[in-house]
Amino acid sequence: MRLSRFFLPILKENPKEAEIVSHRLMLRAGMLRQEAAGIYAWLPLGHRVLKKIEQIVREEQNRAGAIELLMPTLQLADLWRESGRYDAYGPEMLRIADRHKRELLYGPTNEEMITEIFRAYIKSYKSLPLNLYHIQWKFRDEQRPRFGVMRGREFLMKDAYSFDVDEAGARKSYNKMFVAYLRTFARMGLKAIPMRAETGPIGGDLSHEFIVLAETGESGVYIDRDVLNLPVPDENVDYDGDLTPIIKQWTSVYAATEDVHEPARYESEVPEANRLNTRGIEVGQIFYFGTKYSDSMKANVTGPDGTDAPIHGGSYGVGVSRLLGAIIEACHDDNGIIWPEAVAPFRVTILNLKQGDAATDAACDQLYRELSAKGVDVLYDDTDQRAGAKFATADLIGIPWQIHVGPRGLAEGKVELKRRSDGARENLALADVVARLT
Amino acid sequence: MRLSRFFLPILKENPKEAEIVSHRLMLRAGMLRQEAAGIYAWLPLGHRVLKKIEQIVREEQNRAGAIELLMPTLQLADLWRESGRYDAYGPEMLRIADRHKRELLYGPTNEEMITEIFRAYIKSYKSLPLNLYHIQWKFRDEQRPRFGVMRGREFLMKDAYSFDVDEAGARKSYNKMFVAYLRTFARMGLKAIPMRAETGPIGGDLSHEFIVLAETGESGVYIDRDVLNLPVPDENVDYDGDLTPIIKQWTSVYAATEDVHEPARYESEVPEANRLNTRGIEVGQIFYFGTKYSDSMKANVTGPDGTDAPIHGGSYGVGVSRLLGAIIEACHDDNGIIWPEAVAPFRVTILNLKQGDAATDAACDQLYRELSAKGVDVLYDDTDQRAGAKFATADLIGIPWQIHVGPRGLAEGKVELKRRSDGARENLALADVVARLT
Repeated sequence: MRLSRFFLPILKENPKEAEIVSHRLMLRAGMLRQEAAGIYAWLPLGHRVLKKIEQIVREEQNRAGAIELLMPTLQLADLWRESGRYDAYGPEMLRIADRHKRELLYGPTNEEMITEIFRAYIKSYKSLPLNLYHIQWKFRDEQRPRFGVMRGREFLMKDAYSFDVDEAGARKSYNKMFVAYLRTFARMGLKAIPMRAETGPIGGDLSHEFIVLAETGESGVYIDRDVLNLPVPDENVDYDGDLTPIIKQWTSVYAATEDVHEPARYESEVPEANRLNTRGIEVGQIFYFGTKYSDSMKANVTGPDGTDAPIHGGSYGVGVSRLLGAIIEACHDDNGIIWPEAVAPFRVTILNLKQGDAATDAACDQLYRELSAKGVDVLYDDTDQRAGAKFATADLIGIPWQIHVGPRGLAEGKVELKRRSDGARENLALADVVARLT
Repeated sequence: MRLSRFFLPILKENPKEAEIVSHRLMLRAGMLRQEAAGIYAWLPLGHRVLKKIEQIVREEQNRAGAIELLMPTLQLADLWRESGRYDAYGPEMLRIADRHKRELLYGPTNEEMITEIFRAYIKSYKSLPLNLYHIQWKFRDEQRPRFGVMRGREFLMKDAYSFDVDEAGARKSYNKMFVAYLRTFARMGLKAIPMRAETGPIGGDLSHEFIVLAETGESGVYIDRDVLNLPVPDENVDYDGDLTPIIKQWTSVYAATEDVHEPARYESEVPEANRLNTRGIEVGQIFYFGTKYSDSMKANVTGPDGTDAPIHGGSYGVGVSRLLGAIIEACHDDNGIIWPEAVAPFRVTILNLKQGDAATDAACDQLYRELSAKGVDVLYDDTDQRAGAKFATADLIGIPWQIHVGPRGLAEGKVELKRRSDGARENLALADVVARLT
């Protein structure tokens, strides 16, 4: 993409409304624009990252055997009356009446709707286990939306729902999602730690939150540092096999949010040198809630013995839009964002340090053409900004690799390659750059 | 994908509520479930097609130089008061109040919001031309939603918005979208004919609808049959070059909806043998509306002469979810859907005609493994249904290629390959199938 044809509205000033660094950087880097309190437009740079995150989430859900569908944003109020949550949900639910005065709501989550879909079609244990997910916009009418995409009102969530004949099956489904989440966040370059959690309005008796450590996080957390070094299963993990050893390994090391923290256990189990009390950002949560929704909504299947029984369910959320904020909180410096490669909006940016100089333009054009032909996502800064401004923009928007192309280096046939993560620079022959990056 | 692990709730009966064939087939093929009037859940098979259509639309927008972003579904009412459309839009606009009694609406289109984004950042003609698009859910509160996804309330639309300094520039932007639309629909296997159209509530003085011919279409159309044989530009079309010859070729042959039909011109221009009066389904519409929104919303840029002037705009819609219905209306027979390959949910389906027979299972498993390894989207019917039911399901869901694997053929080392579009069958050596399909 040529920057002269892109839409990247960089802000020079720090926006006053942004209280945390991820919000500030997303606004400054031209990723996001607020359209109403807690409601954002995703400008092209932000949209590219959102799509990459969404795709990683999708691939790992698919790998774990979950099946994608797509439920609508609006739901009938009557559906939520069946489960009893319509009145219970409170003012965070956005309630709507259509032209015929029919009561709708903007879905904050989809346990009711997926249960309605399930019970309409599935009658026998033979169709189970089943895990259905979607990636869709949700709305929660926060009293005080803030922190940009970290506590927005309209937000993108991946939510999966598992259906099993009994608790043993449901725990297997739960474990699959647990492992899929370990892989999902690791692929994004994050250390997200599963922690025992309260179940809140979803209900149930088993839940883990996946939490990224960051000083600016909303929750206090207590962990054993050993949890930071546990291995994440690779892509060959067998989801049909026994996952309990992985789960045991990850849940036997102490890690808990302050809500469920047990100081006595912490002190007896965790050597003092290993204790870490810090803050974290929740990026996913998984629940086993048994028959909570299948009881109230009569989602039964016929078992092998011919009797009908309510299915055992779980739900599994990933905050897709929130992840942008979490990644930036974890990956930035004073100059801007430092995208992990897997979620970067572009992998490489070419900075033309003397736009209009024939040799420099030709070298940049050639690099741009060759890298694009190899399938590398390139942002080519071909604007007439001065070199200093191009360096600042490149650091701010956080593309992993910068290629600095100017007349001085080119006189010796060289360009400079800068790695954004640590600032490491190397001089390379122009002819070697493409091979170095592919 | 193994069908035993997929979620494909085929309906045996014709659903009573479906008045047209696409709606009936989408329900029967387990693609769609109604969650409220005109509000649907996309079941996995339908979702796969929706994603393929969305991706073709995206690729052709990108090729034409449009830049993707994503605006939220909810908008502030005040934004629409600026353009004067808040009161004008009528009961099709879903109006919402949040917990603080702030007035929102579920966006039916985005001219106002994109103009707000544009004017916040773009001040100079040097940043133009610019075309920004998104693919997002919209809501129109139809008085009487019907025909499934053809006239739903919550629907997925691609809408692009162009910004130019003057009318000449805007017409170039319009022409790019005209050509992109020709390519978009052709890639989906559709003949979509651009026809002069009224501008309606979007405004402006130049508009074309892209219409797929189908007896069940909502509009009457009058065309010169020659328009059916015009060439569609290939992928090397130069969007920076002069597109007017292409536009002239397509607009000089008579094609008009009944709203703007001119019988006298039709009879004088079109030889009687070439006249075709039929019906059609609108799948896209493009508009040039000049300064309609930039005047009212004060979206000005400074021109080369240093004076400020309102930008000239256009907007360009594709009904992404509606396209599923249009494609099925155009591509089906008595047995079910016939997907064009480019949008098919899977390209190949393997029918195991004797599940449980060791040799048949082994042959199917091998084909499934090899085709998947080659990147072919395969649905493997490994259920315990009888052969007749598998044939019926395969025809109903319309996968382009069926591989019939049974003990009788295998005894001679053969399987049967059936092409869904014309029913053509060939017997192939088991070892030759993968090569035949890749």
